[in-house]
Amino acid sequence: MATVRLDIAYDGTSFRGWASQRRPAIRTIEAELTGHLERVLQEPVKLSVAGRTDAGVHARGQVASFVTHTRVTPERMSLALNDVLAPEVVITRAGYAPEGFDARFSATSRSYRYVIRTAEVSDPFTGRYEWHRPRPLRLAPMREAAGHLIGEHDFTTFCRHPGVGKSTVRDLRRLTISAEGGLVVMGFRANAFLHQMVRAVVGTLVMVGEDRITASQVARMLAERDRTGTPNVAPAAGLTLDGVTYARR
Amino acid sequence: MATVRLDIAYDGTSFRGWASQRRPAIRTIEAELTGHLERVLQEPVKLSVAGRTDAGVHARGQVASFVTHTRVTPERMSLALNDVLAPEVVITRAGYAPEGFDARFSATSRSYRYVIRTAEVSDPFTGRYEWHRPRPLRLAPMREAAGHLIGEHDFTTFCRHPGVGKSTVRDLRRLTISAEGGLVVMGFRANAFLHQMVRAVVGTLVMVGEDRITASQVARMLAERDRTGTPNVAPAAGLTLDGVTYARR
Repeated sequence: MATVRLDIAYDGTSFRGWASQRRPAIRTIEAELTGHLERVLQEPVKLSVAGRTDAGVHARGQVASFVTHTRVTPERMSLALNDVLAPEVVITRAGYAPEGFDARFSATSRSYRYVIRTAEVSDPFTGRYEWHRPRPLRLAPMREAAGHLIGEHDFTTFCRHPGVGKSTVRDLRRLTISAEGGLVVMGFRANAFLHQMVRAVVGTLVMVGEDRITASQVARMLAERDRTGTPNVAPAAGLTLDGVTYARR
Repeated sequence: MATVRLDIAYDGTSFRGWASQRRPAIRTIEAELTGHLERVLQEPVKLSVAGRTDAGVHARGQVASFVTHTRVTPERMSLALNDVLAPEVVITRAGYAPEGFDARFSATSRSYRYVIRTAEVSDPFTGRYEWHRPRPLRLAPMREAAGHLIGEHDFTTFCRHPGVGKSTVRDLRRLTISAEGGLVVMGFRANAFLHQMVRAVVGTLVMVGEDRITASQVARMLAERDRTGTPNVAPAAGLTLDGVTYARR
């Protein structure tokens, strides 16, 4: 038995997210990878994944793992998968992981990036990975609001579908906002994220940047833990899972 | 009567090139733009274009022009077009041009860029705009071969479909080859290009970079003016029309 780790990048535009759906006609990253891996390895494959990205969300540094009996090397798996799936989905690295490694449960943090194009016109070469919103955003109040969100909080307000009986507390360790060349880029890092948490936070911060709500209102919204109060969920296209970190062993 | 100039960028992946086809079901940039413009302006529109890009070829700095009776401002046209076509096709600038300006006949040079990814794995975010060819290329002989092509020559060897009775002489003013971060980028500038000329030159230079032919063989091929001798036409995806220059008036 061996544990294999796959590092994966994908353009999520044409996928209904990571997670396999019951109806096989629905195209998902997990279903494509699993299907091709099972053909190559001639055995069932059950992938564990660091970030279950939603429909239309992209990834540069997604990580998946699985336990296998095969003698096929990770390098061969990677070549076989890239042969059929690249460049839409690319295995950027494949290798053996230490016993017990699990892409989901061993992860200590996830990083996401959200890109808003505030310039008048969009760009055909990057438009699939951006939210085009050609209006100015005031960064100072957005950063003030972000300051209220950083740290360990119950993020119920910013969660679309909390799992039944699951904790809604997350540790948001970093939230940076920068502007450059007609883009506003937000960087997020947390131990883990709730369902649509990044997009709900982005949508809320955009309202702050447009002076429709204040930074202190965001602090109150967080404290109220009222999901129905989330004003605005930013579109999936602007969101990319940048990377996942694991403790050294 | 006014002359309108449109600067256009597009991801050509899902288009059968610039030029309208007889069968309306075939999606082309010209047909999309003309159709939407005619609806907005309520008059027939005949576009002149600087570079009639082939199926799958992209553009950052394409230029088109037309003569019109409309009172609709170029800014309104641009907003209306971007509303329906962006981000796949984007009007990056729209304005009145001097009387007599013609995007095709007034152009003094065209610049194209061709991108080859020589790295092992492709990139989901840029893969649509690159030729993925994960083998090393030797740049020195490629540059030597490029040197034989620069200048005014009959480029029949590198032309797929020369027009009947049309000149096949072109002035290739620049051909640069650089390597960076797993990419080999070739920059071309000429007064104008023949049909598939850039892609035929790229395909040939790649053969030089792989030591399958020599730089002096390329010089001989050029001199032979034998279209059937063109060994290799690079795929459309790697090619982008970067820009067009016009004389100041």
